[in-house]
This record gives sequence, C-alpha cells and structure tokens, in this order.
Amino acid sequence: MNGLTCDALLGGRLAIRQPEKGYRAGIDPVLLAAAVPAGAGQTVLELGCGVGAASLCLGARVPDLRLTGVELQPAYAELARENARANGIALDIVTADLVALPAPLRAQGFDHVIANPPYHLRERGSAAPDPGRETALGEATPLAAWIDTAARRLVPGGRLTLIQRAERLPELLAAIDTRLGSIEILPLAPRVDRPAKLVLLRARKGGRGPFRLHSPLILHEGFRHERDGDSYTMAISAVLRQGAALPWPK
Amino acid sequence: MNGLTCDALLGGRLAIRQPEKGYRAGIDPVLLAAAVPAGAGQTVLELGCGVGAASLCLGARVPDLRLTGVELQPAYAELARENARANGIALDIVTADLVALPAPLRAQGFDHVIANPPYHLRERGSAAPDPGRETALGEATPLAAWIDTAARRLVPGGRLTLIQRAERLPELLAAIDTRLGSIEILPLAPRVDRPAKLVLLRARKGGRGPFRLHSPLILHEGFRHERDGDSYTMAISAVLRQGAALPWPK
Repeated sequence: MNGLTCDALLGGRLAIRQPEKGYRAGIDPVLLAAAVPAGAGQTVLELGCGVGAASLCLGARVPDLRLTGVELQPAYAELARENARANGIALDIVTADLVALPAPLRAQGFDHVIANPPYHLRERGSAAPDPGRETALGEATPLAAWIDTAARRLVPGGRLTLIQRAERLPELLAAIDTRLGSIEILPLAPRVDRPAKLVLLRARKGGRGPFRLHSPLILHEGFRHERDGDSYTMAISAVLRQGAALPWPK
Repeated sequence: MNGLTCDALLGGRLAIRQPEKGYRAGIDPVLLAAAVPAGAGQTVLELGCGVGAASLCLGARVPDLRLTGVELQPAYAELARENARANGIALDIVTADLVALPAPLRAQGFDHVIANPPYHLRERGSAAPDPGRETALGEATPLAAWIDTAARRLVPGGRLTLIQRAERLPELLAAIDTRLGSIEILPLAPRVDRPAKLVLLRARKGGRGPFRLHSPLILHEGFRHERDGDSYTMAISAVLRQGAALPWPK
C-alpha cells in the first residue's frame, strides 16, 4: 500500500502505520478502547478493525488479552498485522466480512465485542473518491448487522462496547434487539452545554438492567474554540496521552 | 369521582382537580407544556391528556391556542373539561382511544401534537390496584401507536413534543418512523453528573435535520439531596413556579 504515515497514539506508546489518504484512525478508536471494561486474560473480538488502532490501544492498556480483529479489506488487514507485530501486541487478524465470518470464528464466544462502525450513511452518488475510505466510512453493512454479529459472538454475560456518531443514535438503539440488555449510552460532547458529537454504547448479552442515559463526558475545556492545540479536559487527555481507562459513570 | 384534590400549578396560575389516588400530574406535564414551541393561534392536540394538566399549562403560557385533548377514560376526560372551565382556558376534550379517533378528529391536522405517554411497562400480573392509575401508568397502548397517531395528525412541518422516562428512550427512538425527522432529545437529569431520569423529544413532520442529543437540563441544584424543599435550578423553577418556557438548546 502506497502513501502510508506512521502516527503515535497514547503519548507514543503505540506507533500505527495507516494510509495517508482514506480512512484514518483519529481519537475515536482510542476512546473506544479506553471504554472497554476488559480484564486480564479475557477474549476480545473487534469487528471492522481497520489498521487495528482500537484493539492495539486496548492491548496496550490491559495485559494478557486474547485479541482478534475482523477486517474486510485485505490491505487494512495486512497493515493491522504489521502494526500488531511492530508494537509487540498479540492480535489475530481475520480477513473476512463480518456478516459471513469463517467457521472457526463462528465457533468461538468472546467476553467482549468492540466496534467503531462506519459513520456516514452512503447516499446514492456520493461515493468517496478513495475506495478504501469509501468502505471504511460508508455504509456497506447496516448497523443492525454489526449488532447482530456482536450478539452472536458474545458469550452469555459478555459485553459489547461501540462508538458511533451521536446523529445515528436512533438507528443504533433501534438495531439493538432483546439478546442485549443493560444498555448504557455515554454521550461525548465537544464542550460543556453542546450537543453530543459521539456516543459510546455499552450493553451486556442477556443483561436485564434498565437503559441508562449518562451525563455527557466533555472532550474540550472552555465554552468555545479559543486557540489551536491541546485543549482536552484532564480525563480525556489522560485517555489520549497516557493510555488511561475512560472514566465510565457509575 | 370521589377523593379529589385541588392542586396549584405554575405558582398558582392554574388549579387542577385530580383524583387523590390514581395517576396524578406531577412536574412532567408542566415540563412537557413548557417545551412546546407553539405560537399564538396555533392548533394543539394532546394525546392521553388525563385531567388536562399539560394542555392547560400550555394554554396559560401561550395566548389564543386552539387546544384539543384526547382521553380514553371518561372520568379523567370529565375532570379535564371541568379543569378547563374552572381555569377559563378553552380546551376541547374528546373521550376516545387514541388508536381509534373519531372521524371529525381524523379529518383535522394540527400544528402541534403533545404527549406524556404512560411510563411503566405493564408486566404480567402487576396491574396497579386502582384501575384508573393502571390505565394511565400502564402500557395499554404501545409507544409506537402514540407516535403513529401523532404523525398522522400533524400537518406537514408540524411539531411533536413528548416527555418520557429516559429508560424508555430505545423504545421511543425505535418507534419513530420516517414521517418524522429533525429529532431532538433533551435529557432531564435530577442533578449534575447524574443519568437522565426523563427525556423530552421534539420532532418535525417531514423534518430532514440530523438527530441531535442535547446537553442535559439539570432539575436540582447541588450534587446530592441535602434538604427537603425547593432545590430546583433557576431555569426549572421559572418553568414550574412562573410558567416560563423551558430553555430549549439552540
């Protein structure tokens, strides 16, 4: 793959090679990984792992995980394998469509499923110029298929953690069926008193707790954009720069 | 109807007679009414209006509305008529099931539909001892039927405003179909950094704006319950005690 960059994540703990053009890991996979309530020794499946940023961030924070990533696009899958090797984190990458997983994967149950599904609805005639970017950002697979695969692959009591644009919350909640419960939404708002831009979702397979809409986590200090540079709140800065866990509300 | 109380709303601007036992209007219909973006002269239909608290609060704030309330239970409908008369607010009450509105109502379109649907899912064997309370609190009519009737009765561009327990947000969003858009959720949290207890929903018939999840509106001052009495935030106190409009985020 031509035109790669190498980007530092978690304050330099991870170096991620990814395409210069096309889908690029921003803070979203880092926030996703920081929100996963995984403990040492557990199994984790990432659906649509791209170059592996979320799984590798999670592996950098929690020891002894057994990490598996599924990626449809071979070039991204290969980069994910290289990134895992270069960062010394065990991450098993399976090149496959998440709606048609190979039999060995379908035979496995996971303690955690994590996903950062594409954010944009693909509209007719609006395909992105880069085909890799198009698949990663566009709606090749409906959100309901991501949820369905996650629900199938979780062990009873297993946890789904997912990040998505706040705009798609109605679709996301509509896609969740009765196999998943104890659903929690943590809105991520750019600043105090602003609408949420992203939402983190946690759910439990077979969970029976009520739905909870948490108070938003604020990404940036201040009421408006005052200068360029690092204006992240302390909690978010600890996640992004020091690889801390995200402070999930009680 | 025996065992009635007379309760002051909006700092005494309204006096509402309602059953001592059974479903009783709390702050929820007051908050609902305060969130309705109605202007003078517009038409408003309230689904499941009970004793008329929300419609009467709205009529007390906005002049010259043409208010119609639908109520299934004849005793509540009669109280709503009496409350309208006693408070000098024109409110037309139709005793009917919202899933089978009479033909004259089905022939009308409204600028606004408002609703405070029952909060509790009726579970098998858990009927409340009071049958009026049971119908008002229990799930006789699924949330999707409320949304469907609202969408049918709104004029193009008309607005739905609804209040519901935050726990039922997944159900609520799943019930909203493509006739309604520009959906906004305003969470109502009891205190700072606490999960939302209620959500206000606004949507527009034929709206095309993206879904928005607003920063929560906080009901009470302080981080915890310190003493009994009025600990409402200034904005909420202005709504409840002075009949102000609810400050809806831009």
